[in-house]
Amino acid sequence: MAERPEKMKARLPRGFVDRSPDDIRAVDRMVGKIREVYELYGFEPADQPLIEYTDALGKFLPDQDRPNEGVFSFQDDDEQWLSLRYDLTAPMARFVAENFEKLPKPFRSYRSGWVFRNEKPGPGRFRQFMQFDADTVGTPGVAADAEMAMMMADVMEAVGIARGDYVIRVNNRKVLDGVLEAIGLGGDDNAGRRLTVLRAVDKLDKVGPEGVRDLLGKGRLDESGDFTKGAGLDAAQADRVLLLTSSTGDDLAGALAAMRGAVAGSARGEEGVQELADIGAMVAAAGYDDGRIKIDPSVVRGLEYYTGPVYEAELLAEIPNDEGKIVRFGSVGGGGRYDGLVSRFRGEPVPATGFSIGVSRLMTALKNLGKLDTSDVIQPVVVLVMDKDTESLGRYQKMVSDLRRAGIRAEMYLGGAGMKAQLKYADRRGCPVAVIQGGDEREKGEVQIKDLIEGARMSAEISDNAEWRAARPAQVTVPETDLVAEVKKILDAQAADRAGQ
Amino acid sequence: MAERPEKMKARLPRGFVDRSPDDIRAVDRMVGKIREVYELYGFEPADQPLIEYTDALGKFLPDQDRPNEGVFSFQDDDEQWLSLRYDLTAPMARFVAENFEKLPKPFRSYRSGWVFRNEKPGPGRFRQFMQFDADTVGTPGVAADAEMAMMMADVMEAVGIARGDYVIRVNNRKVLDGVLEAIGLGGDDNAGRRLTVLRAVDKLDKVGPEGVRDLLGKGRLDESGDFTKGAGLDAAQADRVLLLTSSTGDDLAGALAAMRGAVAGSARGEEGVQELADIGAMVAAAGYDDGRIKIDPSVVRGLEYYTGPVYEAELLAEIPNDEGKIVRFGSVGGGGRYDGLVSRFRGEPVPATGFSIGVSRLMTALKNLGKLDTSDVIQPVVVLVMDKDTESLGRYQKMVSDLRRAGIRAEMYLGGAGMKAQLKYADRRGCPVAVIQGGDEREKGEVQIKDLIEGARMSAEISDNAEWRAARPAQVTVPETDLVAEVKKILDAQAADRAGQ
Repeated sequence: MAERPEKMKARLPRGFVDRSPDDIRAVDRMVGKIREVYELYGFEPADQPLIEYTDALGKFLPDQDRPNEGVFSFQDDDEQWLSLRYDLTAPMARFVAENFEKLPKPFRSYRSGWVFRNEKPGPGRFRQFMQFDADTVGTPGVAADAEMAMMMADVMEAVGIARGDYVIRVNNRKVLDGVLEAIGLGGDDNAGRRLTVLRAVDKLDKVGPEGVRDLLGKGRLDESGDFTKGAGLDAAQADRVLLLTSSTGDDLAGALAAMRGAVAGSARGEEGVQELADIGAMVAAAGYDDGRIKIDPSVVRGLEYYTGPVYEAELLAEIPNDEGKIVRFGSVGGGGRYDGLVSRFRGEPVPATGFSIGVSRLMTALKNLGKLDTSDVIQPVVVLVMDKDTESLGRYQKMVSDLRRAGIRAEMYLGGAGMKAQLKYADRRGCPVAVIQGGDEREKGEVQIKDLIEGARMSAEISDNAEWRAARPAQVTVPETDLVAEVKKILDAQAADRAGQ
Repeated sequence: MAERPEKMKARLPRGFVDRSPDDIRAVDRMVGKIREVYELYGFEPADQPLIEYTDALGKFLPDQDRPNEGVFSFQDDDEQWLSLRYDLTAPMARFVAENFEKLPKPFRSYRSGWVFRNEKPGPGRFRQFMQFDADTVGTPGVAADAEMAMMMADVMEAVGIARGDYVIRVNNRKVLDGVLEAIGLGGDDNAGRRLTVLRAVDKLDKVGPEGVRDLLGKGRLDESGDFTKGAGLDAAQADRVLLLTSSTGDDLAGALAAMRGAVAGSARGEEGVQELADIGAMVAAAGYDDGRIKIDPSVVRGLEYYTGPVYEAELLAEIPNDEGKIVRFGSVGGGGRYDGLVSRFRGEPVPATGFSIGVSRLMTALKNLGKLDTSDVIQPVVVLVMDKDTESLGRYQKMVSDLRRAGIRAEMYLGGAGMKAQLKYADRRGCPVAVIQGGDEREKGEVQIKDLIEGARMSAEISDNAEWRAARPAQVTVPETDLVAEVKKILDAQAADRAGQ
C-alpha cells in the first residue's frame, strides 16, 4: 500500500452553492412555465456560450469599484481576454450583431442559463445565478416595451404569483436623463454626479423621500452610523428630482403631469414622458392597468446600457427574509430598452428591448411563499440484497428490471450492508416500498413486499393500529410472479391516500 | 449627436458556438429522455456550480501538454485558484465528500450541464460542451458497474438508437494494470511508459493490431509521414499486451481466458479479470449479453482517476463525418469506477462508479442519423400592423391576447415596416397564419386571415391550383368576433395535412 495521501478539504468557493433535488425539480418546473409564456408570445429559444471576449461583453455592470469590475476574466492562449458572461443580454447582442443578415427582424428570442458576478457574496447574493431572458431586437416603437411589461406580468402569474401580489413598474431613462439635463447635470463631466443622483433615487423605497433629499444634497447618516456622501445638489435641484419621484403610478395622469414638470426644458425628457404616456395607453387598452403594470418614476435599474423605457417586476408579498424578518420581497426581474448594445458592433442603429427574470431569486420567493411543491415525486422501490452471490444478484436485478419495464422507479440496493442498514437507507430516501427475498422465500418462489409509507404511519400511531392493519397491511408475501402487480397495487393505494389527504 | 463610436467586431472565441432553436429543442427533448431513464433507475437530480477550487477538481485530464493542463483557471480575490469544471465527476466527488454524513449511502445521483476544456478546438471538438452523468457513491461491488453498463444501454435506446446500432464495451483498469505489472512496467518510475502503452492500446480500432505493435515497440510512421515514438517494449512484452487485446467480447469465455493469460502473475490483474467475469454473468442474467454489452479488453478511457471497471458507449452506425466521409461514429459516452476520487477528501475508502453521456456529441450523431425531429413546433400567428396610432396598436394587441388566451402562439408585428416586409417576416419565421386589419376591414368589423402554409403551397403549384382553391382557400375574411375560431380552424387543417403526409 502507498502511504496515506494528504487529505484535501472538500469546500466550495464563497458565493457558490450546490442545489438540492427539490430545488432542481422546482426550478425545472418554473423554467418550463416561463418558457410556455415566452413561446406563446412567439419568442424562439436561443443559446450563447458562457464565455465571450471581454470587450464584446462591454462594461455595463452597476456599482463596480473592484479592479476586475465584477466579471470573472482570464487570458486565452493568444493573450486575448475572455470573460464569463455577467448577464444574458450582452452575449445576445454579440450574437445578433454577428448574424444580423441571417435573422428575421424583429428578432424575438429567449434564453436561460447561468451568469456570473465576481462580487462580494452575501445572504441571498451569489456569484453564480440563473437568469431567463426574452428580447426583441429591431423594434423602434414602445409597443415592444409595452409588450415586455405585459409578458412579465403573465410570467408572474404563470409561476403562481397571484394578481395583486406583484407589480410591474415602468419608467424611462430618458425622463431621468431629462431631469438631470434640466438641472444642469448634462455632459460627460457630470457622469459621476449623475450616477450618484440615480443611486439616490433608486433608494427611495428604502430611505423614503427625506432620505433621498439627504443623498441628493450633502449626504446621509444611516442608523448604523455609516455616512453616504451626497450628490451635492442645491435645494432647487433636489426639489426638481423629488418632484419627479413624488408621483405614483396609481394616478397615471398625475404621474405624467409631475414628470412633465420635472423635465420641462429637456427635449429628451419630454420625449421620454410621451413614450411613457403611450405605454400607459397600450397597457390600458389590453386591460393590464388593473394594478399589474404601473408607471413609476423611481425605477432606475442598475445596468448602464439602458437608453429608454425600463421595467421592474416587484413582489409585493411580505416574506420572511434570511434573518426571519418580514419584508417586502422586492425585485425578481427587470429590463429595458438598450438601443446602443447591438449597434456597438454594427455602426448603425439597432433598437432593442428585453427583460430578465432572476430565476434563482424568484425561486427563493416562491419557496418562502410555500408555492413550490414537489411532493408528487415518488422515490424508487428498493429491492433488498439478502444474498450476495452473483446468481442471487442476477435474480434481484431481474426483479428491478421487471418493475422498471412497468414504469416503476426501482433500484437494487448496492451498498453491501445488512438488512437493517438497507431498510434504514430506504427510509432515508423516502422509498415507498421494499422488496425482500431471502433463502426461505426463494425456495417457495415468493417475495415479501413492505409498504414503507403505511409501515411508518403504523409505527407513528401505534396506540390504535388495529384499524390500519385491517385496512391495508404494511407487509405482504406473494408469489414472485405477482411482484409487479402487487407493488403497483400498493403504490396506487398510497397515491389514493395522498389525494385524499 | 456624439461622434460615431468605433465599431467593434462581433465574434466568438474559437471552440465556442451559438445554438440554433432546433438544436436547443432537440437537446431539451433528448435530455428529458435520458432523465427518465436515470429516474427510473432510482437516481436523484443533483447540481454543483460551474466553478470550483482548482485543487478540489484535481488533475485527471488525458493528454495534457499545455501549461494550464486543459482547464480554464483564474485567481480569486484571496489569491486562491479557481477553475471552470472540466467534467461533472470531480465536482460531484467534492460535493459528496463535503456532505458525506447527510447523504444516504449509496448516494445515487444524476446531473447535467456545461463543462469546459481549455484545449485546441477542432472539427466537432469544442471548448464548452454538455455532459449528462449518473453516479453511485458508496458501492464496493461490481453489481454497481454492471448496472451502469445496463443503464447506458437503456439510455441509448431511449434516445432512439436501435439495438444493434450501439454497443457498451466494458473493460477493467486492473486488467490493464495487471498486464503492465506482469511485463515489468509497475512502479512510479514507469508511469510515463505505462501511459504510452495505454495510448497505443486505445488506438486499436484506428491503427489495427500491427499498428499497435509498432506503437508498443519502436514507434509508428503514419500515412501522413508523422512519426509517433513507441513505448520501447521488446517483442515478448508486446506479445503479452497484444494477447490481451486479441480477444473480442463476442466470445466472453475466450476473452476472459486470453485476459487470464495476459495478466498471469499479477494478483491485481487476476482480480480485474474475475470482476469482469462477474459483470459478464450479471449482464447475461439480465439478458443484456445479446450484443448490447460486451467485455472488450481494448477499452482504455482517458481520464486518470479510474481504478476498476471502465465502460464506453459506442455508436456502430456509419455516419458521414464533418468532411462527408462515412465513418463509424464512435464513443458518445463512458465512465468507470473511481474509488479514489471521493476518498481524496475523506481519508477513508469511498468506492464509487459512474458514467457520462456526451450530450452535444450524441446530438450530433442523432442529427446525422436523421433521428432529430422538431417539425411539430408551430411558429406564431402574426397580427400585422397596418395602422400605427396608439389606438390601433391597442386593437391589434387585443387580437394577439385573445389568440394567446386560446393557447395559440401569436405576436403583433413590432418592426415598423410596411405590409410586404411584414409578410416576408412571417414567411421567414415559417409562421402558419397572418391576420390583417386595415381601415376598410376595421370599418366593417372584419379581419382578413391568410393561411400562409396553403398560400406557399399554392404558389409552388401554380399550374394546377383550381383544386387547392376549392379544397381550402388561402385567405378568408371573417367578422372580428370569429378571429380565434377561424385561426384555430386553419391551424387544425394544417395539422391534419401534416399528419396525412
